[in-house]
Amino acid sequence: MRLWDANGASVDQAVLAFTVGDDPVLDRELLPFDCLASAAHARMLHEMGILRSAELEAVLDALAEARRIALADRFEIALEQEDGHTALELFLVERAGEAGRKIHTGRSRNDQVIAALRLLIRERLVLLGEQIEEIAHLLLDRSETERETALPGYTHTRQAMPSTVGQLLSSVAEGLTADLELFLGPLALAHRSALGSASGYGVPLPLRRERISQLLGLERSDINTLYVQNTRGRLESATLGALHQASLTLGRFASDLIWFSSEAFGFVSLPVELTTGSSIMPQKRNPDLLELARAVPASMLARYTEVTATLHGLPAGYHRDLQRTKAPLLAGLRDVRALLAVMGAAARGIEFDRERCANTLREEIFATDRVYALVRGGAAFRDAYREVKERGADSPVRTDPESSPIEFLAARTHLGAPGTRQEEWIRDRLREVAARLQPNAEGAATARALLDSAAQD
Amino acid sequence: MRLWDANGASVDQAVLAFTVGDDPVLDRELLPFDCLASAAHARMLHEMGILRSAELEAVLDALAEARRIALADRFEIALEQEDGHTALELFLVERAGEAGRKIHTGRSRNDQVIAALRLLIRERLVLLGEQIEEIAHLLLDRSETERETALPGYTHTRQAMPSTVGQLLSSVAEGLTADLELFLGPLALAHRSALGSASGYGVPLPLRRERISQLLGLERSDINTLYVQNTRGRLESATLGALHQASLTLGRFASDLIWFSSEAFGFVSLPVELTTGSSIMPQKRNPDLLELARAVPASMLARYTEVTATLHGLPAGYHRDLQRTKAPLLAGLRDVRALLAVMGAAARGIEFDRERCANTLREEIFATDRVYALVRGGAAFRDAYREVKERGADSPVRTDPESSPIEFLAARTHLGAPGTRQEEWIRDRLREVAARLQPNAEGAATARALLDSAAQD
Amino acid sequence: MRLWDANGASVDQAVLAFTVGDDPVLDRELLPFDCLASAAHARMLHEMGILRSAELEAVLDALAEARRIALADRFEIALEQEDGHTALELFLVERAGEAGRKIHTGRSRNDQVIAALRLLIRERLVLLGEQIEEIAHLLLDRSETERETALPGYTHTRQAMPSTVGQLLSSVAEGLTADLELFLGPLALAHRSALGSASGYGVPLPLRRERISQLLGLERSDINTLYVQNTRGRLESATLGALHQASLTLGRFASDLIWFSSEAFGFVSLPVELTTGSSIMPQKRNPDLLELARAVPASMLARYTEVTATLHGLPAGYHRDLQRTKAPLLAGLRDVRALLAVMGAAARGIEFDRERCANTLREEIFATDRVYALVRGGAAFRDAYREVKERGADSPVRTDPESSPIEFLAARTHLGAPGTRQEEWIRDRLREVAARLQPNAEGAATARALLDSAAQD
Amino acid sequence: MRLWDANGASVDQAVLAFTVGDDPVLDRELLPFDCLASAAHARMLHEMGILRSAELEAVLDALAEARRIALADRFEIALEQEDGHTALELFLVERAGEAGRKIHTGRSRNDQVIAALRLLIRERLVLLGEQIEEIAHLLLDRSETERETALPGYTHTRQAMPSTVGQLLSSVAEGLTADLELFLGPLALAHRSALGSASGYGVPLPLRRERISQLLGLERSDINTLYVQNTRGRLESATLGALHQASLTLGRFASDLIWFSSEAFGFVSLPVELTTGSSIMPQKRNPDLLELARAVPASMLARYTEVTATLHGLPAGYHRDLQRTKAPLLAGLRDVRALLAVMGAAARGIEFDRERCANTLREEIFATDRVYALVRGGAAFRDAYREVKERGADSPVRTDPESSPIEFLAARTHLGAPGTRQEEWIRDRLREVAARLQPNAEGAATARALLDSAAQD
Repeated sequence: MRLWDANGASVDQAVLAFTVGDDPVLDRELLPFDCLASAAHARMLHEMGILRSAELEAVLDALAEARRIALADRFEIALEQEDGHTALELFLVERAGEAGRKIHTGRSRNDQVIAALRLLIRERLVLLGEQIEEIAHLLLDRSETERETALPGYTHTRQAMPSTVGQLLSSVAEGLTADLELFLGPLALAHRSALGSASGYGVPLPLRRERISQLLGLERSDINTLYVQNTRGRLESATLGALHQASLTLGRFASDLIWFSSEAFGFVSLPVELTTGSSIMPQKRNPDLLELARAVPASMLARYTEVTATLHGLPAGYHRDLQRTKAPLLAGLRDVRALLAVMGAAARGIEFDRERCANTLREEIFATDRVYALVRGGAAFRDAYREVKERGADSPVRTDPESSPIEFLAARTHLGAPGTRQEEWIRDRLREVAARLQPNAEGAATARALLDSAAQD
Repeated sequence: MRLWDANGASVDQAVLAFTVGDDPVLDRELLPFDCLASAAHARMLHEMGILRSAELEAVLDALAEARRIALADRFEIALEQEDGHTALELFLVERAGEAGRKIHTGRSRNDQVIAALRLLIRERLVLLGEQIEEIAHLLLDRSETERETALPGYTHTRQAMPSTVGQLLSSVAEGLTADLELFLGPLALAHRSALGSASGYGVPLPLRRERISQLLGLERSDINTLYVQNTRGRLESATLGALHQASLTLGRFASDLIWFSSEAFGFVSLPVELTTGSSIMPQKRNPDLLELARAVPASMLARYTEVTATLHGLPAGYHRDLQRTKAPLLAGLRDVRALLAVMGAAARGIEFDRERCANTLREEIFATDRVYALVRGGAAFRDAYREVKERGADSPVRTDPESSPIEFLAARTHLGAPGTRQEEWIRDRLREVAARLQPNAEGAATARALLDSAAQD
Repeated sequence: MRLWDANGASVDQAVLAFTVGDDPVLDRELLPFDCLASAAHARMLHEMGILRSAELEAVLDALAEARRIALADRFEIALEQEDGHTALELFLVERAGEAGRKIHTGRSRNDQVIAALRLLIRERLVLLGEQIEEIAHLLLDRSETERETALPGYTHTRQAMPSTVGQLLSSVAEGLTADLELFLGPLALAHRSALGSASGYGVPLPLRRERISQLLGLERSDINTLYVQNTRGRLESATLGALHQASLTLGRFASDLIWFSSEAFGFVSLPVELTTGSSIMPQKRNPDLLELARAVPASMLARYTEVTATLHGLPAGYHRDLQRTKAPLLAGLRDVRALLAVMGAAARGIEFDRERCANTLREEIFATDRVYALVRGGAAFRDAYREVKERGADSPVRTDPESSPIEFLAARTHLGAPGTRQEEWIRDRLREVAARLQPNAEGAATARALLDSAAQD
Repeated sequence: MRLWDANGASVDQAVLAFTVGDDPVLDRELLPFDCLASAAHARMLHEMGILRSAELEAVLDALAEARRIALADRFEIALEQEDGHTALELFLVERAGEAGRKIHTGRSRNDQVIAALRLLIRERLVLLGEQIEEIAHLLLDRSETERETALPGYTHTRQAMPSTVGQLLSSVAEGLTADLELFLGPLALAHRSALGSASGYGVPLPLRRERISQLLGLERSDINTLYVQNTRGRLESATLGALHQASLTLGRFASDLIWFSSEAFGFVSLPVELTTGSSIMPQKRNPDLLELARAVPASMLARYTEVTATLHGLPAGYHRDLQRTKAPLLAGLRDVRALLAVMGAAARGIEFDRERCANTLREEIFATDRVYALVRGGAAFRDAYREVKERGADSPVRTDPESSPIEFLAARTHLGAPGTRQEEWIRDRLREVAARLQPNAEGAATARALLDSAAQD
């Protein structure tokens, strides 16, 4: 029974299913964070004199238990309870009686869900950020090993200039560093307290909103109560936007690995656990995991679309349309977690065929080197370019045709060029960005401690 | 154990989860159709001499049983089985032994899944089409009753010209008729057989592809085997596109009902089962179901995006990326089914406040009538327009200020104008379009009969 | 000066630019169709007794002239005129005086723009459809020539089974046939008359809407006037959806050609006019045109998104938001026209390196043939599969290692298999679909004749 | 003549148009930034000894002139020149001879375009950010004036709790503050130098990449050359994502104003310059500008989609597909600029009907206040809620029915509640965020000075 049902209106089950949507499932993921937010809220109610000490204790104990059950994925939410927030209130009423009936003082489900979502997003983004950092370091490790492994550098899928395997691996690591930087935007917005906005217009009680913020390890509280409600779907979309960017970097790397591991290129072999067989062709080993990874950006775009298009045209304040932004957010977080697992396994397990890589460079890939030989001899670039072009790209550039591509790479000495020592530079930037996620990580620990300590009492 | 696993490669569970995705859940929905396709395939194998009569019988019995279990949503697909197609083959091997080990002759999972998807799409679109037709007729019934219920006609959310409630209801019905017409495109593509394409390059066996097509009640077989593989994700997106259109019509009608049932308009009251309460404000009855309906188009756009963006840039043939097009298709079909249930309930249950509707028309809404009075008197339209504009829109147009809006509507006599008898015209077109879905409905019945008769044997 | 400006309100230029948008440019493309719709409207006004014979003649002459100027892209629309519809009315007033001031009788800009858009869409889709048909026939011609050119058949970018160049080319042709079939949906909706809906609520005049429909060579008139207004953005999105599908087929073929023409594959060479050079690397010839073609589906998805997301949440009737659906429609039509030009040139100009194609087939690509050899000998498929898999995919399948892939292809005899004569079957279906576009082509000719004959008088 | 054309290949004009796309138009916007980047590049070439002093001077003079012409929108780019980068090189060759033929030393069009785009994005985002800040302050000014103007607070488009006009205005201001914060992500990525990456693999010359970065007022240089190329389309999409967020805030506010200015609400009147008339209905004043503003988020979503979907599936390095990301970026920047102009005009010009606002509050909007009266008396919230609900929402809550809504608002004293003094708090946060855009603004000034000083010499 929902707490605010119309008197006796018989609720058609099919319609209820649509109303409720996937909330009973999705809210199992959200519930542990609702427990934390509720714990801070309860403490504030106690400090305001609304919950007595014993009541507070009973509520915190019940919340700690609810959180334990939910983290073990055993908190059942009945269809009639509609969502996890109602289920949690009923749980508290059952365990803590009168105190449970007081917990909703000064809040609405509307700010309760926003509060829980922000805590969830903060914790998840911090975790995904750490995994991204780890993969980037791993790629830099491997880049160091493959710094002199010559590889054709491609543009337009054609051989362009000499490059190295290390250059490719480092490029992904630097890309992930930039992606991580884009986490800071949504993390800043998640690092603020929503509670006290109620359904968007506050309540006639002297709530201490900044105190809740402090208890939850948040940077501060949002101000305008209507603004808080209008953030619904917005932090979600900013989060999905940031995750989309990371998926683009990794999806593109997956694309490289798929092609480079095909018979046509043969540069790299994939760890067997990232491949699967065929039901009809006994010889096949397919790069299925990397193909699924390559497809993740399309799903992230779809989720970003779903959340933002839902907002189009809505006036201010809460509308039930916004409920439908929860599923794409949670699915997006889950997908990126899996994507990172796969691409981490790829970064660890791929093996390069150094000989094949080096032997694939064609003579004409050195044409630009010939241009620059003329430039170093004093020719204007465009004249040198024309001269080489007219001579024909096939005419040999290497005086000694046995000379190794690595000699050509050695002529590229500027910052970030293929073959140069660049990994440590990138690591510095990576660590710098990662350090900026620390306050969020610490805030998340503060919030968790709210119920960990209760649990220990 | 999957049938084509690499020898002894230990498969990491997390990676497996990503590989498998939601297939074990999604395929429970697909499996009944895979059973039908497999039954037709088995009959063809028998006719080719590959399955003996007793083997065919054993296979058909097992397929009928699998279908029954799956329709009851009790067919369990283990994570290690990876997908429903493998699970079904294992089920057949278990029940029918040697015959089960023959069932995959002349096909691949790749064409098996396309075949099952087409049957599913055909059956679902036919069913949704019938529901759309029903709602359209319902709206026309109500339009007849409300043909003379005056209502302000709005453009730009401002009162524009006099209209009627019936005009609004009929407009939705005609809109649904057009939407239904757009079902014909994907239905035509779903009405063709995919089997025999194997993994895209056929097999060295004299398969009788047209025979399978006939057994499944399909219009004909596709030809080029590689083309068949390239349809993966394409029929799905064409289907989602058509469903998106229907959701736009109904989402927009939901938007009208949300606003018209608000205190500010007060034209219509909603059936109580389409509203819910608030956790904090005891007085609230919110139009939640209609808000969720309004949001469906955003989700449909997202699903269309997910499926088509997955295809961008892929070369010909199957890639595992395509697996990820299954979930958005099934979710889209499910959402539109719920949307139709809600909007059907709305079409039945809304009640109009005729007095309030009529009383809301403001004097200036008749300004265009005044222009046309001058036009009927011989003035050029643009001159009449200027004259009325200069006089000021507020000056009365009705000589008798007690005259009813219905008198003004009576002057609108042309085809489809507010207040005219138009419902029967729209019904004719609706029936005409609905009749064009019949061959698909009959084909679906033919396919179902393949195992219904087996079940009866 | 717009005809309905507020008295003396000074209009800020920047705001005007936003209001007007790109209409002065876009409407140059729409204007020739507005002239046709206006000609039919004028004839109806004459038959209703509103325009006298001389007035009709003056209006038709002016419309014919406006159309000629517009088709030559010389019809200037001033920023203050806001859009082409106003500009046209002012043009008529200037040329035909009183008759020009009568032309807007019984219509609104709202139905005027819908009417013109439908005529434009009908004509453009017919034209694009004819080009698609031509490309498909061209591909089938080339498929006949390359029917025995062996090519590895790929799945997951790995060699899967033997195929042919012809199989690839025919698959695209059959794909285009299906795409063309999806044109029929939007074409059916474009083949209906919108005029007489005015701003959505009709007018108090006995308009003859069906007569206009007949004059414009349309199948019939829409009925409900509000419905007509609600189609704005809808036909546009259905059209973009159909074009998106065609772009997916061709974009994917472009992707194949890009990879197959790279050094890594070397199967095909591109016509030089589809490639460009590099500003820095003298040796490069890049497949730029095909890359641009590959990117078109992303743009089509964006346009579909723009149009449909604009509609989300809007209540019934016209809103200015809808103006913004015009640009994506016209851009989409233009892009697909260019895409067809490029892919037509590619279909004509590509040359296959038959030897390289055939030599690239690896021994293990025949593994499935070995499985089927066992099947033909009586083994159950799954047992045969296991046996071949255990033996190892590398062990030779060809008893005579000099045997040609074509011998293996010869064993594939079923409908649509690689190497079979399938082109004529596909041509039949192509012609059948193309024939269904004929009524639209004829209707478009009827509409054009409205002013061609006027011009000749 | 492009500089790298194939010898004598006749280039079909239609194909050329597709190749070139809108570049000749779009690049007029990009060219002033290309001039700045080229100036820094030239200085570095001089410091490396490649350009002599006189050559540098000639190049800088020519660049300053090109920038002046381009800023006046008079730099013509011929279709055969293909893009602005080539046109600029040809311009330099014409003006500076040999020095012009040297300018392309050590770069490629690929890094040239990225460099110019970053400078453009930095400058535009700074400018748009300043406008957002200005609008937010304006809204806070107006919020102060309307702090006690009672307004129904809505959820689900139903009256929920008492609020104020000031609360609505402040909520938008705080929303814009958060949006501005999301500008910091793309601004950080734009604040880095791309030059020296050439076509992704560097060049065999000792380029001083950090020096260029310094000259352009950028924070630092990116490192890995391939990474730089892979940012193409990425910064663009991150920028569009941030702009999309701001458009969502303003589009939603536009939606509120559209509804609140309709006859049904009547809370606010719009400045006449934001409305337009109707071609058929003389009485209409439509909120066209706000409707166009409401539609902008749909366009921003489309542009984000176009850019990111283009990237899906691409392997590393430059592909011509990426050219198509330029148009949506520039269109998005332009649209948001117009959106800000319109919404700034709205923020300034709207007038509230205070009496109508206050009189619209219905008795039941105070139901929650009654609940809280019981809570303050000691009742548990849920019990109080039930009691009020059972009594019926209509029973009066106000003992003195003449009491003003403002008395109820006075009971809401917590942070950010309606009626509280919150504007100064929001201003503080706004100023804090705006200050973080300063380094970008200063960097942009540094870059501009590169040619301003040259111009003054």
